[in-house]
Amino acid sequence: MSDLERYTVTMPRDLLQSFDARNARKGYRNRSEAIRDLIRAALVQDEWTRPGERVAATMTLVYDHHTRALADKITELQHEFNEQVASTLHIHLDHHNCLEVIVLRGKAGQVRALADALASLKGVKHAQLALTTEGRLLS
Amino acid sequence: MSDLERYTVTMPRDLLQSFDARNARKGYRNRSEAIRDLIRAALVQDEWTRPGERVAATMTLVYDHHTRALADKITELQHEFNEQVASTLHIHLDHHNCLEVIVLRGKAGQVRALADALASLKGVKHAQLALTTEGRLLS
Amino acid sequence: MSDLERYTVTMPRDLLQSFDARNARKGYRNRSEAIRDLIRAALVQDEWTRPGERVAATMTLVYDHHTRALADKITELQHEFNEQVASTLHIHLDHHNCLEVIVLRGKAGQVRALADALASLKGVKHAQLALTTEGRLLS
Amino acid sequence: MSDLERYTVTMPRDLLQSFDARNARKGYRNRSEAIRDLIRAALVQDEWTRPGERVAATMTLVYDHHTRALADKITELQHEFNEQVASTLHIHLDHHNCLEVIVLRGKAGQVRALADALASLKGVKHAQLALTTEGRLLS
Repeated sequence: MSDLERYTVTMPRDLLQSFDARNARKGYRNRSEAIRDLIRAALVQDEWTRPGERVAATMTLVYDHHTRALADKITELQHEFNEQVASTLHIHLDHHNCLEVIVLRGKAGQVRALADALASLKGVKHAQLALTTEGRLLS
Repeated sequence: MSDLERYTVTMPRDLLQSFDARNARKGYRNRSEAIRDLIRAALVQDEWTRPGERVAATMTLVYDHHTRALADKITELQHEFNEQVASTLHIHLDHHNCLEVIVLRGKAGQVRALADALASLKGVKHAQLALTTEGRLLS
Repeated sequence: MSDLERYTVTMPRDLLQSFDARNARKGYRNRSEAIRDLIRAALVQDEWTRPGERVAATMTLVYDHHTRALADKITELQHEFNEQVASTLHIHLDHHNCLEVIVLRGKAGQVRALADALASLKGVKHAQLALTTEGRLLS
Repeated sequence: MSDLERYTVTMPRDLLQSFDARNARKGYRNRSEAIRDLIRAALVQDEWTRPGERVAATMTLVYDHHTRALADKITELQHEFNEQVASTLHIHLDHHNCLEVIVLRGKAGQVRALADALASLKGVKHAQLALTTEGRLLS
């Protein structure tokens, strides 16, 4: 963590009161932390607009493991893109449905391409890509 | 506008530098203003999670004005919901396509219902609801 | 409008029933229309990932017209980018707050740049960009 | 999986061609599968608008494990909400940064509350909630 800086922010009282009320509802104990979180979320959104930037992401898939050859194809894709796939977690939701979370790292463009390839597999019922960061830019 | 308050925010230097660089790219001249904008955007998102809250929104429709009876239906819906419809702007995109922006005000739940009714009209090619605020909560 | 094509879609009965129920709630009278709307929304999302593609958008601003020189700056920006600004609608929300909708057309990259310039003006309380299309790709 | 139904969709040829081109880019081999995916994504979005509906989600956190007591607090929260927490995956991004994915199940309202509690912890640099489904409604 780099050195801390302190600076002053000016804000209408009403706005500050609304923000403090929102922070209390969300469980923030500290206004600075809530502001830092908004800033970091905006920076991560920016990272993802640059295809060559290194990012992290998690891909969540829900699928029926009875679908023929699907689990094999998901595994094959992960091996093909092994440099981008960091790790995988698997949950048995019920007799039919599995939830699999795949942690991805790499350039934003590559990560999106792998995510598209996973989402378009036949038998994947729902796919959701959560965009996050490797954390270097966010001290 | 209510009275101004000043308060101090603590932040790692790296994070502050990344934020300042992002703000320069986006055209902000002033760090406080960029922070206020992040806060106001978060508060407006919150407003929209409460169906009874009064909000404002704009609905943007793209449609082919040759589609039979469509323009009439769009107009009828606006009259039916006249308490929620504040105003309308119409643009002729080309020989076929119109873009219409409808400014909506009312309770979040009602505004969403009207937006669904407009989006589902046959012949509407694209519909996009932009969620905003009547501004009372944001000084 | 180009010629119509008919094709067959296969779907588990449960999924079809859930989809029909959702469509009824949203006001669709016709399953094909609901499918076309999902497809068109996906295509418009795609258009916006290519910075050189021509698009349309609406920018919704909420601001306090008492903020010194703000209305002038918004007008100046629109003149500077007059090729991208198609039209503007203005609503008086209350004694302080205005809502202004600006219809934008041009290359996706230019439209985003203008939207950033408007959103970052001091005194703009909320800015929301709704991404839509000039409609050429969507018959 | 329930019985299959077949039905006919009508669509302008241009729209169909644009959709097929998009599907090829994304890796779909089959138009029906691309349509089913759009429908299922729309249904999952709907599920999440009803706070009492049972859903699944993954929460991705990036944090610095040197932050005092943070890992303990994350663990405590997961025990407190043990009925909603299905499983956790942990990745060491670099010397400082960890990525943790927490699979959540429960009523939409409860899952959001737990997600807020995790995101607001001091030291969590980035938090992203991916909304998905337990899969019952999506055959």
